[in-house]
Amino acid sequence: MAQTNRQPSVALSTEPYKGTRDFYPKDMQFRNWMFGKLAKTARSFGYLEYGGPMLESFDLYAAKTGEEIVNQQLYWLIDKGDRKIAVRPEMTPTLARMVAAKINELPRPIRLFSIPNLWRYERPQRGRLREHWQLNVDVLGGDPLYAEAELLTLAVELMRSFGGAERIQVKVNHRKLMDAFFTKTLGLSSAQAHQVVKAIDAKDKVSEDKFKAWMTEAGVREDQFEQLTRFFSSDIATVVKEVPCEGADHLQKLFAMLKESGVGSQVVFDPTVMRGLDYYTGTVFEIYDTSPENNRAMFGGGRYDNLMGIFGKEALSGVGFGMGDVSLQNFLDTHGLTPKFASEIDVMVTLPKEEYRATAETITRDLRSVGLNVITPLAIGSFGNQLKLATRQEAKLAVLFGDDEMKLGAVLLKNLATGEQVTISTAEVCAKARQWLS
Amino acid sequence: MAQTNRQPSVALSTEPYKGTRDFYPKDMQFRNWMFGKLAKTARSFGYLEYGGPMLESFDLYAAKTGEEIVNQQLYWLIDKGDRKIAVRPEMTPTLARMVAAKINELPRPIRLFSIPNLWRYERPQRGRLREHWQLNVDVLGGDPLYAEAELLTLAVELMRSFGGAERIQVKVNHRKLMDAFFTKTLGLSSAQAHQVVKAIDAKDKVSEDKFKAWMTEAGVREDQFEQLTRFFSSDIATVVKEVPCEGADHLQKLFAMLKESGVGSQVVFDPTVMRGLDYYTGTVFEIYDTSPENNRAMFGGGRYDNLMGIFGKEALSGVGFGMGDVSLQNFLDTHGLTPKFASEIDVMVTLPKEEYRATAETITRDLRSVGLNVITPLAIGSFGNQLKLATRQEAKLAVLFGDDEMKLGAVLLKNLATGEQVTISTAEVCAKARQWLS
Repeated sequence: MAQTNRQPSVALSTEPYKGTRDFYPKDMQFRNWMFGKLAKTARSFGYLEYGGPMLESFDLYAAKTGEEIVNQQLYWLIDKGDRKIAVRPEMTPTLARMVAAKINELPRPIRLFSIPNLWRYERPQRGRLREHWQLNVDVLGGDPLYAEAELLTLAVELMRSFGGAERIQVKVNHRKLMDAFFTKTLGLSSAQAHQVVKAIDAKDKVSEDKFKAWMTEAGVREDQFEQLTRFFSSDIATVVKEVPCEGADHLQKLFAMLKESGVGSQVVFDPTVMRGLDYYTGTVFEIYDTSPENNRAMFGGGRYDNLMGIFGKEALSGVGFGMGDVSLQNFLDTHGLTPKFASEIDVMVTLPKEEYRATAETITRDLRSVGLNVITPLAIGSFGNQLKLATRQEAKLAVLFGDDEMKLGAVLLKNLATGEQVTISTAEVCAKARQWLS
Repeated sequence: MAQTNRQPSVALSTEPYKGTRDFYPKDMQFRNWMFGKLAKTARSFGYLEYGGPMLESFDLYAAKTGEEIVNQQLYWLIDKGDRKIAVRPEMTPTLARMVAAKINELPRPIRLFSIPNLWRYERPQRGRLREHWQLNVDVLGGDPLYAEAELLTLAVELMRSFGGAERIQVKVNHRKLMDAFFTKTLGLSSAQAHQVVKAIDAKDKVSEDKFKAWMTEAGVREDQFEQLTRFFSSDIATVVKEVPCEGADHLQKLFAMLKESGVGSQVVFDPTVMRGLDYYTGTVFEIYDTSPENNRAMFGGGRYDNLMGIFGKEALSGVGFGMGDVSLQNFLDTHGLTPKFASEIDVMVTLPKEEYRATAETITRDLRSVGLNVITPLAIGSFGNQLKLATRQEAKLAVLFGDDEMKLGAVLLKNLATGEQVTISTAEVCAKARQWLS
């Protein structure tokens, strides 16, 4: 029979596409563990999981996503129907589209989470890959203060679920406070404010001198720069007095609420937190690792208004954040918070002779029926060889039997971790295996 | 502060990209339930989960994937580094690449599963979407007979986990048996055999007359056609005698093993199962829904040799199948096997006054700490309004309190399903809530 045979003349690479990762079983076990904990904590706050397609209309991103992403980092293509579609670089536009589609049906407040994979064309480096996964948590509707208090509490609780709550700090700011400070207090023009925001956003990555030079370029005078520097180290009580505005009041109330929610000590006011120039309009925040060797923003988010407007739907304010899997994994590794994982294989039922296969299969079925993960050798083999195979496959227990055991209706159950072994009737093997594994 | 504001002049559509689906919380709850059961059963057979990137080198598919998919159905693009990359249309090439990369490290037999989303450009129709998810299960290495017996047993057990084992039939064939029958028994040329295989593959979709016409076109004589028709209704015992070959022997042994594994009654020999012209080289199979209204192949797979060859690695034979989520969902719906899902929200803790928020937060934290999913209203409100909100949000229980309860250190716990309610001390609320929910 003819076979399609288009074997390439040069061997293909076994490497995954640049900036992406393969997940072998142990990587996947870690990922499932990490995502499982994230999902469990999000659900404990009543957030429900959603999902969307991997490809979306290009226009969805052109409308609201930051220009850098759309122009330089988007993977896109033209389909056979001449539609311009993109591989999703972020989840919020999909969320906005889905909420807009059912804006009159979804009961408010709308609490949602998802853990999608996202794509951005960028030079791979620590913590930045072309494909990564990101926990997205959003709440739409509700009183903004209560919603933000809940979301920031959840952010801390997510880290607590990994044992990392004491190693992070939530830095909070407000866009309207910054507006008031730049335009009213400093008297900057809108264009100057725009440049200053950009510079502050990149402040962590450059020297003090470079930052100062940027300010000068933006036309910020020496006295304004001093005021700015002083502002950067103010606490919220001072700010409420010196820059009285809606944003400052909002933050002060928010901090009081966060104390009630038991996370007050993890949250601080930080006016250098800007979160770029994208769709945030109110409270913005970043979660920092407090360890000296990893001191950087791990994830962040903020309040957005009217993301639904691009769909011609009513304005609905929301607040959300996105937490990348690579940053979280780095955090867990840095702090030794990743556990050792046990093998997922509980038992191997060996097979010494072909004619014993029916018996072996019955034992295997029985063990699976009590919830155990059971493998077989997929070939007949000697006692020694199959024991080696069980070890290589990381089975915790092995069921072994030969002619003698078969005559007695018995098996040898061996604990591969301790070396302990016991000859028991086939009827007892499930109970004993479960006992050893518990 | 300047904001990027590129609001489109025309409202964007809230529809997902054609041929894809949005997963709202209830859809996602179903999907998580379905995938959770699939993963649990695969794990019970010792299969370990893996994952790979969503985009792969185009060459990976050009080498082995069927021509129809590569030429007509692949989503691909050229990246900024001039690499031709494709959105994965199937998972097996990724599996082959990953196994090839660690061919000397992975302990054999290698048992793997994954539930990736896959993309094909096709006209959306029942059971065929542009994006779908697919359980992929593969075992590489091991004695082919034992490996196939295990994999087919797993296929039946997957359906049994949904209560559907009695409603399916596994139809099995062997490529080498068909080779022997076409070339030796019928005496067809290789080119003729190729045409006949294509026709048999499409047999289900055309009339008897059309099929006959295709055979005539392929140069199949009347006597050969009669022989073919007779062959199509033969059982394996007859075939072993009339077309003695490696493939027939293999199938006879395989059926005996499947009896030992307790799934003999679900498996039949069916020489019309061809599985296209792609990489299968030995046993091939399809799982059919036996209900008259849905009688069609739900999923299938087969044995492949040397998928690792394209990477310049040693030949390693494997057997696997892919089960699409849409077909499975159709099957479950057809047979009424989808359960009603309970709400994921256990409790809503209401808030009558701002000054009681600290108390409400403490109760909320306590309830979450015993594993419950708890929401708050995110605003203060009257007893009646918040009770309505709790119902709309599908909470099972509500914690209510006013001035009287606060003075007593008590709350009113209400069961929203039964209407039952009880006034208890805040210290007792966790125990009572758990009791009602269990």
